[in-house]
Amino acid sequence: MIKIAIVGFGTVGQGVAEVLIEKKDYLERVVDKYKIVAVADSRGSITGDVDLFEALEIKRRRGKLPAGLSAEEIIENLDFDLLIETTITNVEDGEPGLTYIKKALNRGINVITSNKGPLVVAYRDLMRIAEKNDCRLLFEATVGGAMPVIKLVDKCLAGNRIIGIKGILNGTCNYILSRMEKEKMPFNQVLAEAQELKIAEADPSYDVDGIDAASKLVIIANALLDLDAKLSDVEVTGIREITPEAFEVAMEKGYTIRLVAEAGNEGLKVSPRLIPIHHPLSLQGTLNALQIKTDLAGDIVVMGKGAGKRETASAIISDFIDLYRN
Amino acid sequence: MIKIAIVGFGTVGQGVAEVLIEKKDYLERVVDKYKIVAVADSRGSITGDVDLFEALEIKRRRGKLPAGLSAEEIIENLDFDLLIETTITNVEDGEPGLTYIKKALNRGINVITSNKGPLVVAYRDLMRIAEKNDCRLLFEATVGGAMPVIKLVDKCLAGNRIIGIKGILNGTCNYILSRMEKEKMPFNQVLAEAQELKIAEADPSYDVDGIDAASKLVIIANALLDLDAKLSDVEVTGIREITPEAFEVAMEKGYTIRLVAEAGNEGLKVSPRLIPIHHPLSLQGTLNALQIKTDLAGDIVVMGKGAGKRETASAIISDFIDLYRN
Repeated sequence: MIKIAIVGFGTVGQGVAEVLIEKKDYLERVVDKYKIVAVADSRGSITGDVDLFEALEIKRRRGKLPAGLSAEEIIENLDFDLLIETTITNVEDGEPGLTYIKKALNRGINVITSNKGPLVVAYRDLMRIAEKNDCRLLFEATVGGAMPVIKLVDKCLAGNRIIGIKGILNGTCNYILSRMEKEKMPFNQVLAEAQELKIAEADPSYDVDGIDAASKLVIIANALLDLDAKLSDVEVTGIREITPEAFEVAMEKGYTIRLVAEAGNEGLKVSPRLIPIHHPLSLQGTLNALQIKTDLAGDIVVMGKGAGKRETASAIISDFIDLYRN
Repeated sequence: MIKIAIVGFGTVGQGVAEVLIEKKDYLERVVDKYKIVAVADSRGSITGDVDLFEALEIKRRRGKLPAGLSAEEIIENLDFDLLIETTITNVEDGEPGLTYIKKALNRGINVITSNKGPLVVAYRDLMRIAEKNDCRLLFEATVGGAMPVIKLVDKCLAGNRIIGIKGILNGTCNYILSRMEKEKMPFNQVLAEAQELKIAEADPSYDVDGIDAASKLVIIANALLDLDAKLSDVEVTGIREITPEAFEVAMEKGYTIRLVAEAGNEGLKVSPRLIPIHHPLSLQGTLNALQIKTDLAGDIVVMGKGAGKRETASAIISDFIDLYRN
């Protein structure tokens, strides 16, 4: 019996809960029986033998979980095997996720996270703590939602040396740029439209200034190129300055403009780049894509939805199966 | 110590041998010590404690291996753990690979193959034999060279139900069609050019009539959609009849034409299809791509080189690591 604590019960945590209910029969065949011993959000928790369906109902009705043990108390004291950590991303200091993950790993508890913050701030530290305590920290959901990246390289390209990576890692920027390309509209107008459609946040800077893409790049580069990079190691330029005229000039020559994140011999960089119109990274809409340059397999490209409730849950569930497949 | 027999010593077998030499230190850290106990081609073999470097030298110099045990004698009598089967593809009866693979599995020996024939002819049979004898048959190299497909779904999309697949599975056809698109040249002229460049064979029918794509589709559909399909279950139309005029009409409406292999609720089909110019399957050149429709992760697309010596070796090596990773 795998005992699971879910910490963070927003969109992602709820998505995971829904899939753990929906696919219980299938998952228990592939992994092992499991039960949820705690669900916590920033304001409260339910512990014991948690009925996920009921927890989702309460959260939906009240907007929060009832008063109870704090996430930290749960992680420090309860008896469980797996922490699913889906608290909100904070790339400045990684908190509160960083503390939660460290405490769990130090107790020898496996962790699956969708939270970029802790990994951007302390990737190597966390991996060392996991290794020392003979447990694992999995994080497929932090980079590109449903798009497989970390396990793709570890499992499917095993034996290959990764030479470099180049990707479209922010769906909001890609949406804005592909709309600018098609409609010949200025940045601010498309941004306003994206905000109305909830594709961009009210404060869009995390996306349009390239910080989200840079955060994912740090995690991917650390994992695939075996680096110890921090956010401050990435040279970042956002997309605010791109004009319809720039698109016009690019298009005339068979190119488009996309926000490209890349890592390789020349360091880590996020910037608007010219991409040939037929190149696999010349994506439309909110998709994400990653091109992986390898020594044997050549260039492998993967693309998929970079965000979304079920898509992110998919990445977490695939980590869950990877951890416990019998 | 993993004892390996390599049967089939053409381009693919030699590619594997080269990587087993080149990456020996790395591989022995990731899996276990290994040695080659037999290498066989259709005319001879070397057995014992095989020096792969020497075997490659002999093959290059003489065009064949020296007289020795036959592949069948090796598989029936020698003591080994893993058969790497890279003989020539024959989608009519699967031979000689089918017999080799069956004999090995019946002895409880793991098999990695790059040979579509046996899997097209007897997918379910082979899987049953492997299961009964508590060993495994891995075949990532049969579908799309270096492009990860089988393990991508098994490992990276674990937990997802696969609803359908749609792909560009033949690099020769894709090369011809993307040249016809660009140069507005007729089929026969582009085919002749492709033959000169060794992208198409002297007898191109296996590729341009869609049989190669259909064979890969059968294997992928059986593996990912849990079917028991045969080549005769695929509705196949090749690309010989496509005219420059058809491209002209398509392009005017923002489409191109590609040979698409698809499987889902409506059965298995390989046929030339209109693809929006910006669609991920609107590939250029000899690339392969597969779009996988899932219930959680949405649509995931992967693309890569569908053929090539090192690319196919990459898929075989990733299966090797999957089998024996310590």
